[in-house]
Amino acid sequence: MIVAMQEKATEDQIDAVTNAMMEAGVNVHRTTGVSQTILAGVGPTASLDLETFEQLPGVLNVHRITAPYKLAGRAFRPEGTVVEFPNGAKIGGNQVAVIAGPCAIENSEQIFTIAKCVKAAGAKFLRGGAFKPRSSPYAFQGLGIPGLKLMHEAAEENGLMAVSEVMELSQIEAMLPYTDCFQVGARNMQNFNLLRELGQIRKPVLLKRGIAATIEELLLSSEYIMSGGNYDVILCERGIRTYETSTRNTMDISAIPVVHKLSHLPIVGDPSHGTGRRDMVAPMAKAAVAAGADAILVEIHPNADKAASDAAQTLYFDQFEKLMADLCVIATAVGRTL
Amino acid sequence: MIVAMQEKATEDQIDAVTNAMMEAGVNVHRTTGVSQTILAGVGPTASLDLETFEQLPGVLNVHRITAPYKLAGRAFRPEGTVVEFPNGAKIGGNQVAVIAGPCAIENSEQIFTIAKCVKAAGAKFLRGGAFKPRSSPYAFQGLGIPGLKLMHEAAEENGLMAVSEVMELSQIEAMLPYTDCFQVGARNMQNFNLLRELGQIRKPVLLKRGIAATIEELLLSSEYIMSGGNYDVILCERGIRTYETSTRNTMDISAIPVVHKLSHLPIVGDPSHGTGRRDMVAPMAKAAVAAGADAILVEIHPNADKAASDAAQTLYFDQFEKLMADLCVIATAVGRTL
Amino acid sequence: MIVAMQEKATEDQIDAVTNAMMEAGVNVHRTTGVSQTILAGVGPTASLDLETFEQLPGVLNVHRITAPYKLAGRAFRPEGTVVEFPNGAKIGGNQVAVIAGPCAIENSEQIFTIAKCVKAAGAKFLRGGAFKPRSSPYAFQGLGIPGLKLMHEAAEENGLMAVSEVMELSQIEAMLPYTDCFQVGARNMQNFNLLRELGQIRKPVLLKRGIAATIEELLLSSEYIMSGGNYDVILCERGIRTYETSTRNTMDISAIPVVHKLSHLPIVGDPSHGTGRRDMVAPMAKAAVAAGADAILVEIHPNADKAASDAAQTLYFDQFEKLMADLCVIATAVGRTL
Amino acid sequence: MIVAMQEKATEDQIDAVTNAMMEAGVNVHRTTGVSQTILAGVGPTASLDLETFEQLPGVLNVHRITAPYKLAGRAFRPEGTVVEFPNGAKIGGNQVAVIAGPCAIENSEQIFTIAKCVKAAGAKFLRGGAFKPRSSPYAFQGLGIPGLKLMHEAAEENGLMAVSEVMELSQIEAMLPYTDCFQVGARNMQNFNLLRELGQIRKPVLLKRGIAATIEELLLSSEYIMSGGNYDVILCERGIRTYETSTRNTMDISAIPVVHKLSHLPIVGDPSHGTGRRDMVAPMAKAAVAAGADAILVEIHPNADKAASDAAQTLYFDQFEKLMADLCVIATAVGRTL
Repeated sequence: MIVAMQEKATEDQIDAVTNAMMEAGVNVHRTTGVSQTILAGVGPTASLDLETFEQLPGVLNVHRITAPYKLAGRAFRPEGTVVEFPNGAKIGGNQVAVIAGPCAIENSEQIFTIAKCVKAAGAKFLRGGAFKPRSSPYAFQGLGIPGLKLMHEAAEENGLMAVSEVMELSQIEAMLPYTDCFQVGARNMQNFNLLRELGQIRKPVLLKRGIAATIEELLLSSEYIMSGGNYDVILCERGIRTYETSTRNTMDISAIPVVHKLSHLPIVGDPSHGTGRRDMVAPMAKAAVAAGADAILVEIHPNADKAASDAAQTLYFDQFEKLMADLCVIATAVGRTL
Repeated sequence: MIVAMQEKATEDQIDAVTNAMMEAGVNVHRTTGVSQTILAGVGPTASLDLETFEQLPGVLNVHRITAPYKLAGRAFRPEGTVVEFPNGAKIGGNQVAVIAGPCAIENSEQIFTIAKCVKAAGAKFLRGGAFKPRSSPYAFQGLGIPGLKLMHEAAEENGLMAVSEVMELSQIEAMLPYTDCFQVGARNMQNFNLLRELGQIRKPVLLKRGIAATIEELLLSSEYIMSGGNYDVILCERGIRTYETSTRNTMDISAIPVVHKLSHLPIVGDPSHGTGRRDMVAPMAKAAVAAGADAILVEIHPNADKAASDAAQTLYFDQFEKLMADLCVIATAVGRTL
Repeated sequence: MIVAMQEKATEDQIDAVTNAMMEAGVNVHRTTGVSQTILAGVGPTASLDLETFEQLPGVLNVHRITAPYKLAGRAFRPEGTVVEFPNGAKIGGNQVAVIAGPCAIENSEQIFTIAKCVKAAGAKFLRGGAFKPRSSPYAFQGLGIPGLKLMHEAAEENGLMAVSEVMELSQIEAMLPYTDCFQVGARNMQNFNLLRELGQIRKPVLLKRGIAATIEELLLSSEYIMSGGNYDVILCERGIRTYETSTRNTMDISAIPVVHKLSHLPIVGDPSHGTGRRDMVAPMAKAAVAAGADAILVEIHPNADKAASDAAQTLYFDQFEKLMADLCVIATAVGRTL
Repeated sequence: MIVAMQEKATEDQIDAVTNAMMEAGVNVHRTTGVSQTILAGVGPTASLDLETFEQLPGVLNVHRITAPYKLAGRAFRPEGTVVEFPNGAKIGGNQVAVIAGPCAIENSEQIFTIAKCVKAAGAKFLRGGAFKPRSSPYAFQGLGIPGLKLMHEAAEENGLMAVSEVMELSQIEAMLPYTDCFQVGARNMQNFNLLRELGQIRKPVLLKRGIAATIEELLLSSEYIMSGGNYDVILCERGIRTYETSTRNTMDISAIPVVHKLSHLPIVGDPSHGTGRRDMVAPMAKAAVAAGADAILVEIHPNADKAASDAAQTLYFDQFEKLMADLCVIATAVGRTL
């Protein structure tokens, strides 16, 4: 950390700041310039709240010069993380993965039909929600564990891995037998109790970026999971909130190269939530792969307009098949496979 | 709801949209203009996802013309809600309430000292966190229920009401005996399971606006609680995320008059989280009261710089006492008392 | 336009609103529902300030149901606009165009060297700034018209078209002989006097999206130029301001498909300004083409780190050549050429 | 400036960065830690583009530790700037000033009626636009210099100072005889040519914050004016663009205390543009004064609903008189006068 003192800071103020830094376990190097003194602090600064130092008398500003995360940082695994699944699928390597399925698991026929379509299109991951957080208390709330069992069967029958969202700590145990990858939704990105618990399991976690979260905060949340020993974390960009209203969210495609620079973790693009509009899903999926995304997550449904939730952003089967073909070409164009 | 068709929409497309609206239980009135047809839908549109209709062929755009909430709307209680507490304190009436206390309950001495200060300053609510969500897994996590018991004792001894944040559904029952008002934090504003459960209890709930939530979404979340029968909901503005970096968040003072126009629920201003900087707390607290806030929530600590959390935004006792005196004058200036 | 009245609106209020709409030249159709009256207005609403109606007593809200632009709308030219240049190059057709050059024209050698590189790489447009708005009054301000002459010569010698930014109305005349395409910078997107004047010339205009402009506002600004009779407008996405700080701006890739849906005008992606970081230029350029951009605008310089301005986001020649090769493959992957 | 090197940076990389800093005229102090080297640069860093250094090999990140402005900084005039006007009015002292008038000057009767009302209410500044930038080319464009003459007469007759917006450099000379204070609109906040020219005149300038400008950028723009020798700059907060749509802009009240901390310049609150809604003007004006604003700028009109522009946010005379009375009490409550 760097503490820049004000030009008129007194020696007493400089001493007080130095002491406060040392009390926090930080070694202090002082540079005295003609007009300004600078204190460089080296030590366990990751867990410090730097704003506290900014309030001390005589301080101009305080900067963090090392990233506040360690395990998630690129330097920890310069070669990049590849998350491997029991069916042989990988997320993070040269092959771009595709995760597809309905927003919500609705019934047996629906999920088996979709699983078949996912397999036929060459994708290796089936997604579907068993617990749906809805803004209206009267809307469809999901089938719960029975729905998850259905999806797990459908996935197994087609050699797919089952990806499903965990909403609460208490659901983890019941979900474990039927879930190959736990998704953490945008609203739970900073539910630290949930993250800590997911650090204890030994199944991959797909962590979505919060709607107003910075990339640094996303990496900090992944650190929470990894600090429990679960290093199989997959990040996901799904749109951030901006002033623009012509799309539901603004999908931050640049988060993909930024994450690749800062971290070794794979990153998935979710153009369904990223745009909220069916006609934007294909161009944004292609853009994500072109920018280096390690996987794409899309919502599909045989009868998209009648889907129990997220109908507006869900693809029909033929749209999905066309997209898979197009993504295949784009992946090749950036030196990868699909 | 209003569906505006494209200029070139065909009769078949108009029929298909009309049918889709009627299937959703909505009565349709059609206006055929020279260049454009408009379909006005009347019925249970609050629970509909309007974006689904926007995807239908021939549709230009769709507008919601009634608010998606009912119980939280101004029309439901035009005279405004006044939440009453067992100690006689009210939030929502002519008197501006003050809720003060530490970010986290640290120990018995700390919380009793603070309670005494709160009482002496004339405030009627003591706040303190027992469960602290921290971005670092190694940071102080709060004292839990034992801490809450301490605060409850300190509050009782001083005739104050105890306000504390509930982090998870599972904590409600254990917190009930020691909590007079349940705070829902910004990160949980859309934790619908938690909100639904808080609708079942009969104690007031202080609901904080999410860091990227619109005012409409805040009101929708309050609707979740009220739909369970708990009408004692108090809203709280605590800063939103914008591009400006000189403050931690941008405290949206205009949310106060907007909420008063749209809803009957009282609204609290939280300048501590709203700014994240101790030197901004007083001016923003005054601004909130001047704009019509029904209460102010501030963090105080006898040794603010050493507070276990949120040190940078916590007031010292003398700063708090000065603020109370100033707020008293501002309250009078806007025709209220403190 | 649609005016939704409040549930408790009186007949007098409804009459007053109806009269206000008719005074504004709008025909009114009234729909009286069980609980709410709706007034649909048809006529010259594009130039009306709808917020005025929202203030009238008894009004709940007001919606615009037709786009506030006409000439820029997709319906005006469903087949799409292709802007043609004297050297045979086009922007808007099947071929993806590339516009490259330095941020600022520095001297003869620099611009001739760059022009040669641009031509060799197969691009058809040379860009360079002659007037530089700098935040510091002491920084390099550009070479002015003499610089523009240099670039024009360099472009001619290599069969390229010269693209340069016009900062002020008064510069247009002097720039005309040396400029094949006038760029309007993000800060001038709503400089209506400048736009109106550019509507009078008969050379293409490249209009950049303002840093906080919505896509609708961008289209409204293009309407200003087109209303003067100059239909050769090319839009440009160059990043918007959001809360994310790891990139200078957030390049809104989804603006590309949105513009293609709403308008017939071509749209260019500018990954140099969109990210502000050299290492992000290539992935974001590829993403833009994958999402359907009609052209890419990049800053290049033989000695990028020493460029007189925008050094941090400027590509070296070899990086540019590599990018051209990659874009060529991506263009093919989306059914276009480069 | 501080350059933090990556942990694995080589000695060659550190040397290269050191040389680049020295070439830029900066003295370098090196601190070599166990895991990281830090280079502190002292010298003329205000005009440097720090992002250039961030691109050099081996660099982790770069921080500016001194403010990029000097003349606008608090330290330049710790006692604060008081701008004095020929009629004895001041902006920046203990008295809170009020600037009122129509959005646009429409005719003689209108502006004289308003001037009388402004004077009667005790305000000392009359505002009115002579040149109106309109998004529609067919809307009212303002009366130009003849309108300004009318306002100047009306102001003189009532002992008021005339405040009007300058849209373009070319208008300054013609406006000079009739303008006591030049307003720079939000869209021109970074029109550096205009700012530089306003630095040459000797009349006060009221500089509005851009709709997406940070407070630092606002101060940098004021520096542009001051560097020309014109120190009578008054800043103005008028709302920023955020994701919230219930108000036209989000008025950033916290900008007021932030500016007071960082700068010696006075700051005005503009609740008319800040909210865009008449019913929000009064609460936000009060909030601004409570937070320490040095002046308030409001739009008034005898027939507000029929105002030629900005009708939705314009106050009627009786609303303005009531507001003046209320502001007077609030000003007293914060130790000032009105």
